[in-house]
Amino acid sequence: MDLLSIDSLGDDQIATILDRADVHFAANRARQASSALTGRVVFNLFYENSTRTAMSFATAAHRLGAAPVFLPVEQSSIKKGETFEDTARTLNAMRPDALIIRHRENGAPAAMALVMDCPVINAGDGTNEHPTQALLDAATIRQHFGRLNGLKVAICGDIRHSRVARSNAALLPRLGATVRLAGPPEFLPDGLTPLSVDDAIAGADVVMMLRIQRERLEADLDDGPGEYLERHGLTAERLARAAPHAAVMHPGPMNRGIEIESAVADDPERSLITLQVEMGVAVRMACLELLAV
Amino acid sequence: MDLLSIDSLGDDQIATILDRADVHFAANRARQASSALTGRVVFNLFYENSTRTAMSFATAAHRLGAAPVFLPVEQSSIKKGETFEDTARTLNAMRPDALIIRHRENGAPAAMALVMDCPVINAGDGTNEHPTQALLDAATIRQHFGRLNGLKVAICGDIRHSRVARSNAALLPRLGATVRLAGPPEFLPDGLTPLSVDDAIAGADVVMMLRIQRERLEADLDDGPGEYLERHGLTAERLARAAPHAAVMHPGPMNRGIEIESAVADDPERSLITLQVEMGVAVRMACLELLAV
Amino acid sequence: MDLLSIDSLGDDQIATILDRADVHFAANRARQASSALTGRVVFNLFYENSTRTAMSFATAAHRLGAAPVFLPVEQSSIKKGETFEDTARTLNAMRPDALIIRHRENGAPAAMALVMDCPVINAGDGTNEHPTQALLDAATIRQHFGRLNGLKVAICGDIRHSRVARSNAALLPRLGATVRLAGPPEFLPDGLTPLSVDDAIAGADVVMMLRIQRERLEADLDDGPGEYLERHGLTAERLARAAPHAAVMHPGPMNRGIEIESAVADDPERSLITLQVEMGVAVRMACLELLAV
Repeated sequence: MDLLSIDSLGDDQIATILDRADVHFAANRARQASSALTGRVVFNLFYENSTRTAMSFATAAHRLGAAPVFLPVEQSSIKKGETFEDTARTLNAMRPDALIIRHRENGAPAAMALVMDCPVINAGDGTNEHPTQALLDAATIRQHFGRLNGLKVAICGDIRHSRVARSNAALLPRLGATVRLAGPPEFLPDGLTPLSVDDAIAGADVVMMLRIQRERLEADLDDGPGEYLERHGLTAERLARAAPHAAVMHPGPMNRGIEIESAVADDPERSLITLQVEMGVAVRMACLELLAV
Repeated sequence: MDLLSIDSLGDDQIATILDRADVHFAANRARQASSALTGRVVFNLFYENSTRTAMSFATAAHRLGAAPVFLPVEQSSIKKGETFEDTARTLNAMRPDALIIRHRENGAPAAMALVMDCPVINAGDGTNEHPTQALLDAATIRQHFGRLNGLKVAICGDIRHSRVARSNAALLPRLGATVRLAGPPEFLPDGLTPLSVDDAIAGADVVMMLRIQRERLEADLDDGPGEYLERHGLTAERLARAAPHAAVMHPGPMNRGIEIESAVADDPERSLITLQVEMGVAVRMACLELLAV
Repeated sequence: MDLLSIDSLGDDQIATILDRADVHFAANRARQASSALTGRVVFNLFYENSTRTAMSFATAAHRLGAAPVFLPVEQSSIKKGETFEDTARTLNAMRPDALIIRHRENGAPAAMALVMDCPVINAGDGTNEHPTQALLDAATIRQHFGRLNGLKVAICGDIRHSRVARSNAALLPRLGATVRLAGPPEFLPDGLTPLSVDDAIAGADVVMMLRIQRERLEADLDDGPGEYLERHGLTAERLARAAPHAAVMHPGPMNRGIEIESAVADDPERSLITLQVEMGVAVRMACLELLAV
């Protein structure tokens, strides 16, 4: 079984992951390590650089007693002209117990999974999906509010290019939440009814801001950082439109002063941002455990 | 005891490695981890980039419960002007349980072994030797044919620069196989009787193609990739000259369409190429076990 | 509790580290691994490249059964414009059991420690401190001489920029040794009474030479390498001024022929240089054990 997209998960598997994540979350806080995956080897292929996701998966593997092995993509056979499929076949022949892959191209994890005998976990592919991020977001919301059912979640920013938005839009409704996707028109995918950040936030229980690529700011919007914050970013003023108890989320790394104001990001009453990171390790433990035991 | 070259191994040690590799091969397939080297630390120095060999050794260490530690050569003290011998002394003082080294220069592993108190494994040095590759090739052939004795093995390509050819030429005859080294004249070492790929393949039980460095194609042969394939590469047509049951091998990564045709590389009846990779982990486990317990 | 500077340690903690280091030193020689930190995860952030210190900490973690996780700083979120404090918050949320940091800027480890809930170990910050180096130097001297009390230690070279000198100057006097800081005037900090290397070495029990940055040789001294050795480096001739039993130390990596002559560095009767490296692993084990159990 692979974890390539939210749709690849059944409702019972989602429930298992969220429940087990809560267990791991508490165990991590209590500094209780698990040996559920002792002797297991987990390959990690990060074709796109990612500190936080790579360290989160490495930590998750270690917390379960598994050994993460990182492929040094920058200096790999890929540079020697080996095809992606040959790399996959070679890695498969080493018989890892799970393989985690992040890749710039949509569908690369699925292509890898066609070759691999072991479970493949998509750690983000192009503009397609980032399922473990959506799972950790769901687990974070559920822990904070005690439920997901009936909550209104506004996801704001560059929806068009966001695999985080895409995976959350697939996951959260299955758990009973309503998702509103909003951003400047240039950042919305074709076919989506335009929705301004202001309108999306109104009455929302959760406001999830996406990371803006600085290079897209100028190319697509002709906006400076400050202008973007004023028009589309999360300021304290704009957050006042949300429900009184509204929580703030961000997948990180943040561009402070662009998509989010520091006062909001650092508000201990509102911000779930570090909780997301903490839950990320627990959710990835749950995913590894489900797939690789 | 070190594993610097095939000649550094006694016949009984070779037999032990091949036998234990079969055991590890089966255990890996059955997902049974070993704890034979729990608590052991294995240093890995890859002065030449190598994804597959590095990951193979890392996986082998983990499968035995040992901890591989990779020296980041690109950013190391070597760049601060430290001598190779001082690096060796420093590493030795950290008391690793084994050290694996790949290096561009012939003899670097032997120089390292002069300093190290722990076993040193040569993971490929210049154009000299790559003993664990030859051992995994032997183990693969033996598993496929049930024996090595009496088999004819054609090794084809850039023999002159190939440490894989050199180690195989030293190992396989000791196990009763006959080795024929073949390639374009420019790629044969001085003193070797010239042998064309066509003639070497005739009646062979195993055809082992070597990786061609693209830069040497033009410099030494003035050949394009397609021309090389036609004249010296392994096509289905050329393979027809071998024994009917002949097996195809390649140390990887492959240049498809240069030294080998895809139809041959991917032929499930003939190709042992992924089996070689799988056996590679098992053989390296056997080597680590023999040296570092 | 953090290990940011020598002053952050109480006398009893220093004594514990030195005593436990001796125990680990002997256990490492006997190849007895510990499982004191099994299940623990140690984050390693090396913003400055360092082979020896990084490998020493990695080895120390493994020898205790802990799992070191290295942040690939070169390709990290830092390059995506994330603030240092946000990186710290993110890492903290992953709940490592200890964090080791080396950084070009003075005070970066202390800034990290303000955010982290787990112990932070300073592995060298700018020109400020390198406390585990001083601890391993003290442990090495103590093992060699059987005591520190009453010994005269000359530390020679670029004192002004040396965190090694700074930490040793803070530590050794607390253990009863006398420290003399010496070097060319350009390399001495303001306010320090100028002391030539010749005068510092006279009668010394220990001569600790510091690594010279080649670029500073020319910029600050207008000296060639050979000139530096002759005027301020440790030659056999200059060492003759020290006590007859005097020992030679260097934190490495050495510039042979600049700050130290090979004949001295390699003198088995005098040089403690590889012993320092070996003790480094033991001292770091003791520090991790003290802080992260």
